[in-house]
Amino acid sequence: MKTILVIGAGKSTQVLIDYLLKQSQQKDRRVIVADSDINMAEQRVHQHPFGSSIALDISNEEALIETISRADLVVSMVPAFLHHIVAKQCLRLKKHFFSASYQTPEMVAIAVDVESSGLFFLNECGVDPGIDHMSAMKIIHDCQAKDQKITLFKSFCGGLLSPAFEMDNPWRYKFTWNPRNVVLAGQGVSRFIRNGKIKYIPYPMLFRRTERVTFRDVGDFDAYPNRDSLQYREIYGIKEIPTLIRGTLRRAGFCKSWDVLVQLGMTDNSFQVDLPGDYTYRMFLNTFLPYDPFHKVEDKLKMMFPEISVESLSKLEWLGLFSHAPLPSTSGSPAEILQAILEEKWKLGPLDCDMVVLQHQFEITHPDLHQEKIISSMVIHGDQDGKTAMSKTVGLPLAIAVDLFMEGTIKGKGMLLPVHPYIYTPILKALENEGIVFKEERYPLE
Amino acid sequence: MKTILVIGAGKSTQVLIDYLLKQSQQKDRRVIVADSDINMAEQRVHQHPFGSSIALDISNEEALIETISRADLVVSMVPAFLHHIVAKQCLRLKKHFFSASYQTPEMVAIAVDVESSGLFFLNECGVDPGIDHMSAMKIIHDCQAKDQKITLFKSFCGGLLSPAFEMDNPWRYKFTWNPRNVVLAGQGVSRFIRNGKIKYIPYPMLFRRTERVTFRDVGDFDAYPNRDSLQYREIYGIKEIPTLIRGTLRRAGFCKSWDVLVQLGMTDNSFQVDLPGDYTYRMFLNTFLPYDPFHKVEDKLKMMFPEISVESLSKLEWLGLFSHAPLPSTSGSPAEILQAILEEKWKLGPLDCDMVVLQHQFEITHPDLHQEKIISSMVIHGDQDGKTAMSKTVGLPLAIAVDLFMEGTIKGKGMLLPVHPYIYTPILKALENEGIVFKEERYPLE
Repeated sequence: MKTILVIGAGKSTQVLIDYLLKQSQQKDRRVIVADSDINMAEQRVHQHPFGSSIALDISNEEALIETISRADLVVSMVPAFLHHIVAKQCLRLKKHFFSASYQTPEMVAIAVDVESSGLFFLNECGVDPGIDHMSAMKIIHDCQAKDQKITLFKSFCGGLLSPAFEMDNPWRYKFTWNPRNVVLAGQGVSRFIRNGKIKYIPYPMLFRRTERVTFRDVGDFDAYPNRDSLQYREIYGIKEIPTLIRGTLRRAGFCKSWDVLVQLGMTDNSFQVDLPGDYTYRMFLNTFLPYDPFHKVEDKLKMMFPEISVESLSKLEWLGLFSHAPLPSTSGSPAEILQAILEEKWKLGPLDCDMVVLQHQFEITHPDLHQEKIISSMVIHGDQDGKTAMSKTVGLPLAIAVDLFMEGTIKGKGMLLPVHPYIYTPILKALENEGIVFKEERYPLE
Repeated sequence: MKTILVIGAGKSTQVLIDYLLKQSQQKDRRVIVADSDINMAEQRVHQHPFGSSIALDISNEEALIETISRADLVVSMVPAFLHHIVAKQCLRLKKHFFSASYQTPEMVAIAVDVESSGLFFLNECGVDPGIDHMSAMKIIHDCQAKDQKITLFKSFCGGLLSPAFEMDNPWRYKFTWNPRNVVLAGQGVSRFIRNGKIKYIPYPMLFRRTERVTFRDVGDFDAYPNRDSLQYREIYGIKEIPTLIRGTLRRAGFCKSWDVLVQLGMTDNSFQVDLPGDYTYRMFLNTFLPYDPFHKVEDKLKMMFPEISVESLSKLEWLGLFSHAPLPSTSGSPAEILQAILEEKWKLGPLDCDMVVLQHQFEITHPDLHQEKIISSMVIHGDQDGKTAMSKTVGLPLAIAVDLFMEGTIKGKGMLLPVHPYIYTPILKALENEGIVFKEERYPLE
């Protein structure tokens, strides 16, 4: 009887754990769920006969070693910056390792040892990164096999609200994922390549340089470039591609309004403020506006952004930024205070359903030189029983990868991403059975 | 015979060392100048009978201890982030310590030990910080003694070109000080207080939120807020002041054009680029502009900044940013590449003279409630014999402080700034003899 250890039992792990538990029954496996919060771990296992839960503080090295020793394979669902701690112990104790997070330099540093130990370490097997890699690679490898040249590849992903649940909110957005990451999204620089020209977009310009992305079923979105797209030329094996952009999706109109908060400095996480305890939303906004004894906060905002839209103003008002109510938090960085404000307003209601959307756009040239456009789109809605689109799209590819590895359908060793056919082909097939499918459209290039 | 050790013999130390050498002859002292570059140290001493030069690598702890042991007092002119290394050895070897740089947290950490050892450590005794503190404190203490209430204090300083030498350059600016600091100026957040309201200006907004500062003799300047003004409420003993802003001066019009480079992302120092070796200025600019096959770089820039002025465009053109010439450097951060471009264009010519300008603005309320405005201004021009305004205004206050301390006019112990009358009064008087004077104007408040 083989044992799977899942470390981390946060919100997005329910679908992952349910899938593993369901398979364990049929396939004679055990699933242990470990979390620093034992109640959370228990809740995920909900007394399943093949599951058990334990309390684990991963900063306690001895406990971590003891717990990992019990397993044959570890799924790490801890916060991204902690994965390497789990991974290093897995290497030491000779356990296979699976995660849905980005492969960090600390991970790359142990890659050679992982391979020489004959271990299988799979990272970036969630949705973004994860399903995006797998679905893109399937098309890329297919084109390459047919001697078609890919001249453009854009890939966009977003975690948002399902359309029926977004109309009570002018931003058409609520937190369906880590709020901190949403508030700090795009800080640093974004890089991509466009028709052979390398492009850098610094943070202050990011939410202005968006493009429109449309899904046949769920409408229009703003896309802003996501971090370093350049590295994917190598990862995807398309080194010579003239245009490669990866982007993040928000509802159309979101970025223009968010940009006002960015320009004001409210998303700044580089310094701490310590405001008086009775500071109001309005006073907080005013700290970022020039002093002017004759004009109201609203007027100063309009003077600072002469082109601000009525829509943006009403979104800021909806957040309460003009109100005289006391702030939910008065210390931390501006970004942390903004996050506290947003967490009250953008809180997912008990009936709200989220949505994950993903779209790849390709332009390809056939050997006979005719050109074609491929649009491949995925739209996944959350269910009202609490299975969010996010937990399905993050959890299912990872759970399926674990299952297929344990049953021997996927074999291999080393530090890997799901960009290889022997990994992504069976996973994409199993995802289809779970309703995670792409619709592909092809058009001649106009 | 007492010995003064000057560590660091960079460009701005000539006036400092000359003053110390001149005094040493009359007062039977010796001056040792130490630098990692022995030629530089020799050049500063130019075979003065009371001076000597030695090679010193301050990262060599043994050599540093040996050299400091020879002195009674140390003047640290090393780069700002290295002062604490020198200061710690001075504490250990019981030597007094003088510097023109900001007092860092590492310095504050040894303050108690410095005081209990009976040592005198003086920081921030250059121009900005230095002369600004001293001249401001003289006015502040004077107002406080007369029971006048200070309701506004603004203090502006800039290192620029003397007006006769700025007209060959549309920016009216060349590097008269550390180019790296100029390119990165303002990164992070600027804070100040305006009529009791705390204000934060994030970097992307900084060069738009300038104010105009005028000097009777040398014309108009843009001022942008300089780092954390709030802490000076405590340092200057004016905790209740409703308005306190410290700012940096550039020629009028500079900031609006510099802002274009900021908005493009060219001053970003947070990531590395690695451009092909044949990249031109124009291609570099284009990496920050959207892709658009139908418009020229100039047109794309105008589309991105619809309100850009003809003046800004011609300043960018003067920097060569539209040219097809190869870049002077193609690797490093965007800020480092921009610095390489600017170092070619903003290089001080052999005949160019620099200028340091400083202006304090006060609004005060007399006990009889009538209100007055005080404007106190200093303008110092560099000489054509190579004594720059920067080296005079940085070097003289520090040299004078050392001299007055050695002759016993200034007495004291502890980690100090020149904000106390027993320190600044004799220094300001001696500075007057060297031509460093403030002109004060007073007007009733309109």
